[in-house]
Parts: sequence; C-alpha cells; structure tokens
Amino acid sequence: MAVKINENYLLLKSNYIFAEIAQRIENYQTEHPQANIIKMGIGDVTKPLANAIIREFHNAVNEMSVNDTFHGYGPEQGYEFLINEIIKNDYKPRGIQLNESEVFISDGAKCDTGNIQEIFSLDNKVAVTDPVYPVYVDSNVMAGRTGPMSDDGRYQNLIYLPCTEENEFIPKLPSSNVDLIYLCYPNNPTGTTLNKEQLREWVDYAIDNKSIILFDAAYEAYIQEKNIPHSIYEINGAKEVAVEFRSFSKNAGFTGTRCAYTIVPEEIMGYDAQGQTHPLNYLWNRRQTTKFNGVSYPVQKAAMAVYSSEGKNEIKESISYYIKNSAIIRESLKSIGLNVYGGVNSPYIWIKTPKNMNSWDFFDLLLDKAYIVGTPGVGFGPSGEGYLRLTSFNTLENTKEAMNRISNLSF
Amino acid sequence: MAVKINENYLLLKSNYIFAEIAQRIENYQTEHPQANIIKMGIGDVTKPLANAIIREFHNAVNEMSVNDTFHGYGPEQGYEFLINEIIKNDYKPRGIQLNESEVFISDGAKCDTGNIQEIFSLDNKVAVTDPVYPVYVDSNVMAGRTGPMSDDGRYQNLIYLPCTEENEFIPKLPSSNVDLIYLCYPNNPTGTTLNKEQLREWVDYAIDNKSIILFDAAYEAYIQEKNIPHSIYEINGAKEVAVEFRSFSKNAGFTGTRCAYTIVPEEIMGYDAQGQTHPLNYLWNRRQTTKFNGVSYPVQKAAMAVYSSEGKNEIKESISYYIKNSAIIRESLKSIGLNVYGGVNSPYIWIKTPKNMNSWDFFDLLLDKAYIVGTPGVGFGPSGEGYLRLTSFNTLENTKEAMNRISNLSF
Repeated sequence: MAVKINENYLLLKSNYIFAEIAQRIENYQTEHPQANIIKMGIGDVTKPLANAIIREFHNAVNEMSVNDTFHGYGPEQGYEFLINEIIKNDYKPRGIQLNESEVFISDGAKCDTGNIQEIFSLDNKVAVTDPVYPVYVDSNVMAGRTGPMSDDGRYQNLIYLPCTEENEFIPKLPSSNVDLIYLCYPNNPTGTTLNKEQLREWVDYAIDNKSIILFDAAYEAYIQEKNIPHSIYEINGAKEVAVEFRSFSKNAGFTGTRCAYTIVPEEIMGYDAQGQTHPLNYLWNRRQTTKFNGVSYPVQKAAMAVYSSEGKNEIKESISYYIKNSAIIRESLKSIGLNVYGGVNSPYIWIKTPKNMNSWDFFDLLLDKAYIVGTPGVGFGPSGEGYLRLTSFNTLENTKEAMNRISNLSF
Repeated sequence: MAVKINENYLLLKSNYIFAEIAQRIENYQTEHPQANIIKMGIGDVTKPLANAIIREFHNAVNEMSVNDTFHGYGPEQGYEFLINEIIKNDYKPRGIQLNESEVFISDGAKCDTGNIQEIFSLDNKVAVTDPVYPVYVDSNVMAGRTGPMSDDGRYQNLIYLPCTEENEFIPKLPSSNVDLIYLCYPNNPTGTTLNKEQLREWVDYAIDNKSIILFDAAYEAYIQEKNIPHSIYEINGAKEVAVEFRSFSKNAGFTGTRCAYTIVPEEIMGYDAQGQTHPLNYLWNRRQTTKFNGVSYPVQKAAMAVYSSEGKNEIKESISYYIKNSAIIRESLKSIGLNVYGGVNSPYIWIKTPKNMNSWDFFDLLLDKAYIVGTPGVGFGPSGEGYLRLTSFNTLENTKEAMNRISNLSF
C-alpha cells in the first residue's frame, strides 16, 4: 500500500503553453540581452486600472482598517452590491432577467472554467472547438474524461470541432452526441465571432440533445459589430442549456486584481442515472460554498466601480485603445500579404503562418528576427498548427514598432 | 443521451454547516427583533487589518493606477517577494529550509485543503479526525472517495479517528492502512493540540506506510505553549510525507481579504500503479497553473506587510486580544461546572454539553436563552455530538457579556 497519484495528470502532454513561452523568452533574452522584446503573446492587459476603480479600491481598503466597517468572511457567492450591478448593467439592458442567486462572483474565469467540470459526471462526452483555450481541455484531462492523447495530438475521448480557414472558423455541429460543449466567443485564440443565427444553432442543438453549453464570454467588451451576441442568453432557450462565464480581466484590466463571475440560471438541469433532473445552480453553489471562500472584499468593491458612469467611460476608452491596436495589426499584416483573422471584435489577431511554416517555427522566427513574442497556434490544439496569435494588449507605440519590424521581414 | 451530473454531490448529507447556522440566526432574529445576538460561531476575526498592512495595501493599489507599476497576471504560484518573507520568517527561524518553488500562495486555505485531493487517485483510503473541518470530508465526498453515508453518520469508505474526552482528543493511529491523513493542529474545531512527540508518531506512521499527511496549520499563530510544533516540518522526516497549509486569515485578519499558502516540499512523492514515484510538487504546480490564476497583487503586497516589524507587533497584539478572550471563556465556563477543552493555544473552545444534551439542542438553548451563537459540535462529525464550539473572535466586551449571560443560565 502507498499513496497513489491521480494518473490522469500524466496524460497531460505539455506544460501549460504560456509557461513554455515564458521559458523560451527568458532563454532568448539571456542569450541576447540587447534585444528589445515586444510581448504580444499572453492575453494580458497593460493599461492601469481606471481612476474610478482605484478610488473605490482605496475606499474599501480604508473600510478594512476600522472596526465598524471591517469585513471578514463574505458570502462565497459574492456580495449583493456587485451582483446587482452586474444584473442591472450587463444583462437587463439586453432583455435578460437574472436573479441574484444566478450570479456567482469568483476570482477568475480561468478558475471557473477549470472547476465547472467537477459538477458533471466523468461519463459525459465533451466537445471543444479546436484551437481552444487550453484550460477547458486540461481540466478535463486531469479529471479523467479524455483518456490519453493519440499520435495526431488529440485526446482520444474528446470531441474536436475544427475551426480553420476552410470553414471560416465556424465550428460544425458535432456528428455524434456530445453532453458538454465549451464555446468561447469572441473566441480565444482566433478572435473570431459567432453571430446570433450561428449561436442559435448551438443553443438548439443543446436543447435537442440535452447538452450543456459552457459559454466563455470573457471578451464580450470587445464586440463592435451589431448582430454579435454579447451574452448567450440573448438566444431564446439558452437559459435552459447554458452556463456563461464573464471576467473583469479583459474589460477593466483586472488580470492582476482578480475578479470574474459565472451565470448559472435556475432553469438549467443535469440528469442522474435514473433520468431525474437536478439544478446545476444547486450543484455549483455547493461546489463554491465547499471549496471557495469568496473574492477579496476590496476587490469586489473595486469591481463595482466598473459600473459607475466614470468607470464606464474610462473602460470604454481602454477598450477603444486596444481595438485600435487590433486594427493596426490587422491592416499592417494584411498589407504585407499575410492571411489574418479576428481582431475586429476582439483583442486577438489570428495569423496564418507564411509558406506553411509550423507555429513554433514562426514563433521562433518572429522572436529571433523581430524580437516579437506571439503565441504559437498549435499550443491551442492541433487545428491551430500553422497559425500564430498576436494580441493588441501592448501599448500603441510598441504595437506600431512591432508592425514596423514585421514589415521589414521577408517571408 | 443527456448531460449527467456528478452524482457524488447527492451523497452530501447536509448543507455546509455555517450556511445552516446563518439560516437559523436569520429566522431567530426575524422572530425576535429585540434580541441582541452575540455571534461566537463562525471562526471569523473581528479586528481590522493592521496599520502596516493597510499602508502597504494602499501603496499597491496606487501602483495599479500607473502604467509603469501596473501589474497584470502574476505567477500562479505567487510573487517571490511574499514567498521569500514566508520562508524567512515562518520557517527559517525554526530550522526549516524551504525553496521558493515549495511555497504556493493562494486565496485561501479552504480552497487549498479542498483542492489538494485532486492530485491523488480516487482509490486512496482517506482518514480524518472526528470531529473535523467539514471541507476535508465534503471535498472527498464530491470527488467520489467516500461512498454514501451510513446510518451512523459516517461515510462508508472514510476512516474516522475519534477525538473525544475519552482519549483526551488525541487521535489513535489507524488500525488499517490509510493513504491520506488530514490533520489540523491547533485543531479546528476542538482547539486542542498535539505536542512534538504526539505529532512524531504520525510522521513515523506516514513514513512507514507511504502515506501523506495533509497538515492544516491555519491556527499556528495562536500557539502559546512550548513543545507544540508550529510546523509539521519541525518533525524529522516530515518533508517526505507532509503538505502544510497556512493562512493569513486567522493571524492577520485576512478572512475577507483572502490570502493563504501551501507548502509542498520537493521530496514528497506519490506512487503510480507501477510503483513509480512522482513528485507531488509537480502535480500541485500543474493543478495550480492550470486552474488558478494567482492572488490579487495588492493583496499579496498587503500580506507581505504581515512580516514587517510594525506588522508583526500589531498582529501579536491582535492574537493576544483573542487569546485573552479564550481564557475568559475557558475560565467562565469552568467556573459554572462545564467541561471545557482547547482555548489555550487556539481561538476555539470546545464545550461538553451539560446533561448530555445533543449539540443542536444546546445550540438552540444558547441562542434562545442567552442570544449566543455557537457551532454545534455534531456539525463537525459524529464524534462532535454532545459538544459545542465557541470562538474567541468577538470583542472583549461581547465576550464578557456572553459569559455573563451564560453564567445566569441554569443547566
């Protein structure tokens, strides 16, 4: 007898991609100390927190310094003051009614999208778009739903829905039955979107097949075009089949401050082996109250300022700034003949590598010849091979400089 | 076909105990609006954050407002500035050498003690002391290691190690082999401790049986007596068999601010089915990098101030305040003839109910006759039946008032 590890961890094929990239940058910088590297790899914001947020953050810290206003444990689900602002600002104006009990504040969409699979049986069939945010895949590998990876780079029991130039990055409905479907729109990593009609097909599929859609809307704030749904609940019937993940990371610069939220409507049901229904809201609430202790009080107060009129204006400005960078990247790369996708409703630009180079070769070329860091598409799944992701989160100056450097390369 | 839930959740027998208590208080307060209720139930601190912490918190918020000092994503494992202070202050002075890679900063010991089981196989035999912090049990129920609960209130596949008056709250080594052992000392809920010799027996057991001890030291700061180990790593060989959980919640009042840390020494190994060893440090690192995104930067900076000389003094004062409350509770209750345990090296006092009342009856009696909220011992496990926990986290005034009220009751 001896303590046994979770052997599913041994099925994980690589380090978390961003750790691998960080390592390559470090190695390169050590060998080339003069290189002025511009990082356009990780989807991390660069603009500071808005003034309205900073002010409220300070106020809340002050509250923590005085007996009468000190806050100890808060509700694991988050404070009502923040939940109500979310409902009032992010959902009501789009005609979506939510109860307070349907909103769960957390410390990150990465945590929530990673943890949500815990409330489901290991027997469910899981589908992911390909390429995809690695957390959806890896959390299911670790739980034991995927089995080992085959030689083609695909986990054996996972359903991959390819999104490539060939299908204009619109995933086809699965040919076999799936129970859990991860969708992320605006998409990470491709920066592409689904319009209402396209998303409706998925909601209808889920209703027909008693499936659940795990909808990651972390990049919602970047939507510029009409007819692109901001929430999956804009689609009729979605409240019965979809969990939605949102974050303050990408709209309000909370990547280092940590606050996000997840919507689990009361209507969504899962099934037990006898075919009885059970509300997912209850299960997620049980998961969160047992294994999570709420988000830092000052952080929740800071997040509330996102919805003040000053906060909204400042945030709008930041988003415009990043979206302008997106446009610069798109246009620059198009002008030198590259095939470029996304970047219209998204901070992500998805580049087809020139001359059919593979992703890591193109990554290394950009690093070595232009001191630019992207993210190799293959790191997001087999269908990401031959692509590379750039982000618009760097400064305008660095973005322009980076595009100048790339324009001087010959492919 | 339909999406299937994790049916292990249906094996959970009750709400998380503190949610149940909150409900009873709310009901009581609604029916008795005049009742001035004193809460001594949840282990939540009441004193505000120390000035040194508040100052550093503000500084870090200011950093987030400026381009040059803004912090986006940090390392999932936590910042070195905090990790180094932890090693230097909490371990080095006790002769314990740790590497930076062995310390993982998180947003709470509840999360870490709840999540740690993920890196182990579902086949492991798990042992808990009884009574016990419910998170250890419930997280294993949800994962599927325990099976259903029997009529005696015990999960079928879980090993219970009773801690009662009869054995002076010292758990006996298990008679059958166990792989994972949760120990919490100073203990939640009983407030009792193990001395070095007693803890050494457990470390030796773990070494002999290739078991792992999951050691929760969240209440370490309350230790007053010599020969009570502050860290399990004070015991020879423990680095090969023990993971240690610590928190800023109970020493520095971070229950609403959220910061904790977990030590996973490089030496600890788990086994695969072929008997090969695998470092748990790698597995936990993989878990955290995949499903967690680090603690809020300003919160980590605030936590660092815990180790400044001003911070240390202020924290020492808070602990003394709570420990004084513990003594008042102990002495008051003893003077009216109750059997009382803990409260010497702990903010928790564990009371044997008078006249063999059951825990919830005693809870209701204290609420109804003295407007005092405790925590029913049975909520922590079957061996907690006939006990009730009080905490010393309320104000001195309220603590005294509560003891006056109890002294006027006749049992």
